[in-house]
Amino acid sequence: MERTLIRDLKQNLEKEVAIKGWVDVARIQGKMAFFDFRDRSGKIQGVVFGKPEVLEVAQQLKQEWVVEVHGIVHARPEKMVNPNAENGTIELEITKIVVLAQAESLPFDMSLDGYNLDLTTELDHRALTLRHPRLQAIFKVQSVIIDSFREFMKREEFFEFQAPSITPATAEGGAEVFQVNYFDKKAYLTQSPQLYKQIVMTAFERVFSVNKVFRAEPSATTRHITEIVSLDAEMGFIDSWKDVRDMSEKTVRYILSEVERKCSSELQLLNATLPKLLENTPTYSLTEAQELIFEKTGRDVRGEKDLNPEDERTLCDIVKKETDSDFVYVYGYPTRQKPFYVFPNPEKPEFNEGMDLLCRGIEWLSGGRRINDYNQLCEHVKTWGMDPNAITMFLEAFKYGVPPEGGFAFGAERMTMQILGLKNIREATMFPRDMNRIDMLLSGAEKES
Amino acid sequence: MERTLIRDLKQNLEKEVAIKGWVDVARIQGKMAFFDFRDRSGKIQGVVFGKPEVLEVAQQLKQEWVVEVHGIVHARPEKMVNPNAENGTIELEITKIVVLAQAESLPFDMSLDGYNLDLTTELDHRALTLRHPRLQAIFKVQSVIIDSFREFMKREEFFEFQAPSITPATAEGGAEVFQVNYFDKKAYLTQSPQLYKQIVMTAFERVFSVNKVFRAEPSATTRHITEIVSLDAEMGFIDSWKDVRDMSEKTVRYILSEVERKCSSELQLLNATLPKLLENTPTYSLTEAQELIFEKTGRDVRGEKDLNPEDERTLCDIVKKETDSDFVYVYGYPTRQKPFYVFPNPEKPEFNEGMDLLCRGIEWLSGGRRINDYNQLCEHVKTWGMDPNAITMFLEAFKYGVPPEGGFAFGAERMTMQILGLKNIREATMFPRDMNRIDMLLSGAEKES
Repeated sequence: MERTLIRDLKQNLEKEVAIKGWVDVARIQGKMAFFDFRDRSGKIQGVVFGKPEVLEVAQQLKQEWVVEVHGIVHARPEKMVNPNAENGTIELEITKIVVLAQAESLPFDMSLDGYNLDLTTELDHRALTLRHPRLQAIFKVQSVIIDSFREFMKREEFFEFQAPSITPATAEGGAEVFQVNYFDKKAYLTQSPQLYKQIVMTAFERVFSVNKVFRAEPSATTRHITEIVSLDAEMGFIDSWKDVRDMSEKTVRYILSEVERKCSSELQLLNATLPKLLENTPTYSLTEAQELIFEKTGRDVRGEKDLNPEDERTLCDIVKKETDSDFVYVYGYPTRQKPFYVFPNPEKPEFNEGMDLLCRGIEWLSGGRRINDYNQLCEHVKTWGMDPNAITMFLEAFKYGVPPEGGFAFGAERMTMQILGLKNIREATMFPRDMNRIDMLLSGAEKES
Repeated sequence: MERTLIRDLKQNLEKEVAIKGWVDVARIQGKMAFFDFRDRSGKIQGVVFGKPEVLEVAQQLKQEWVVEVHGIVHARPEKMVNPNAENGTIELEITKIVVLAQAESLPFDMSLDGYNLDLTTELDHRALTLRHPRLQAIFKVQSVIIDSFREFMKREEFFEFQAPSITPATAEGGAEVFQVNYFDKKAYLTQSPQLYKQIVMTAFERVFSVNKVFRAEPSATTRHITEIVSLDAEMGFIDSWKDVRDMSEKTVRYILSEVERKCSSELQLLNATLPKLLENTPTYSLTEAQELIFEKTGRDVRGEKDLNPEDERTLCDIVKKETDSDFVYVYGYPTRQKPFYVFPNPEKPEFNEGMDLLCRGIEWLSGGRRINDYNQLCEHVKTWGMDPNAITMFLEAFKYGVPPEGGFAFGAERMTMQILGLKNIREATMFPRDMNRIDMLLSGAEKES
């Protein structure tokens, strides 16, 4: 018999169907057996009564066994109806059970409410804990974030390209880059597709990529992982950095609305509230933001080169209180503090046209306008003390006519973590890598805190 | 004035518009100037006459300069109409030109017909050659291949996950794996998301990923690159390996139809003909394929452990001649020749239920049914002489109930190359990496052949 997905059972009242899935719950009570079965589409309650040959198989079933179950879909007797449960109005009268695979006893409680693992154990058993509805919800939300980024980019005529992972030199990087033994030579894992997306933009005008980036930061905080999914965009023919801000704002707006639309049950399960994005997000220059913090709190960070984590939290709190916006843009950082390609403000060249989007106290997204003039770029390369031979290909792109341009980037894991209010970025990473762990703890690694 | 994209000019007859783009061709003839301008959406001819102040700017323009051009859209005089050219019925009477960026003289002919670089030079100048319509067409087709893979997978309820790039041990790999210096420990770049997609499948039933894989093959052939975009799928609750074959066939069918629908002008420009996929692709066991080759050519490869490249070409030729199919499936390889996770045929356990899809003489896609029973898997791990501790997480997934399952994978670059009839996989890779090149030739590298 053809398999019916569990979510389609409602349309098969009084018909005989075959489902395939896992035993989610098994309760044997004398000559009756009650089950919850699950497949990728949902859950259904099944009952065996008065069929000795079926009961014999049913009595062996344990949690996580994989089964093919034949049965007749009935409306539940009125007093058994559970209007809050999925498929709470129907049940399956089981007529046949075929065991497709057995399972060992679970090493811990995997039920919705009973599940309560510390993060280390959760990660050690990722292969099993991924079956938990809460974890499935997290990665469902993440896949919607990534997919709606791509959707929005395509809608705005951005061209998708595949940025490379292996890079020859580290134009930007210093110590925090992983080295690869590349045949008898050295290569590195990319820290950012920045230079590549700028190159491809010069040919395709608007480009985006979803690619891995790697950070060898020897840090084991709740925010650090070494392998990150980076969502990158770059666009030509802007009038100013504000076009980049506006495009990034529209991108975030689209992602949030898609998460809201497609993940309502996941958000509910995770008890998550989406951050509030106003029609026009409050925007401050670094200098203005520092003035605001001083004015509202008396703490004087005026003249500092950047916002520190405390400043970011304070600024977000102020903006939230005054405007109800969870988001705030900050632009205009000291030019020499940022990479060579960031565009200096023509009227105040000691500040640049780089920008960050903060939300709920943390940076979500970075970007800004870039230098598009070849001579200015070469000058910066010199001033920044860089080797132009290490970025030949990048520089060549700008030799042959590049429009005013800019772009932005953000990490899928951090956005997942922030949207869902998770405490550790590892919860938002299916197979997190850090200095102590690649799947399992590395031998000799300290126990994670 | 708001920018109008060139493809929308037709809807603006006799109106004044502003376009932004590159000078594709510039011809100055006395007091007149003729241009082709291009942006991401198309090309348009522009003319300056009788406006001395505009002509003054126009006379400076050279190929690849970036401009904002204001003008009035006119229907061309009848004898100037070119029905074969894009926008061949209209032209722009230029009223104003603003130079957005200058360009140096091009180092070689970048015109549609004049472009004729050897591959080494093309790759050395990727930042510029990416602007050529032929190269843009190749990567447009590639982006459609990748995107329609994702689209079809989502339509079939496959869940997208992000497979990791850094791996702890090399369950499958030997010499052909890149080593990463991971803090004070060793890690490796993934050769395949195989084990991860199987793990995630056990939780989500149907999963796919688009991820980089890395092959340290010290080989500089036209088919080898070290960094590949791998399109991977895995599905539970199959009845047999034929369900995997059918899903892979439907996937390829969807991709081909989307390439045909979305890339007709690119296919024409590249003079490419899509391969023919029949309703039911001819399918042979390895043994049958070897018999067929013997029968039709007299060449006896019966009993060999695999098809060699000549066998693959011969088999494709035979099938094409007899059925007109460009595709052929081969399944049933010697069990011990393939990885430990491939499912052995229960009736003939010395052959497995792995399969390959060949097209036009080359393997396009690999896959098959996998072992889902934990005990059988552990037995294979032992027989294959592997260290079970190196794949703890993978084995754990199968301890707790996994349905009969299988999957497939293919490389985006190879499919691009094969669909377009390109001679070298580097042509189908935006930033190809091989043993001699990462962007530029590596120092001390031999000149590529």
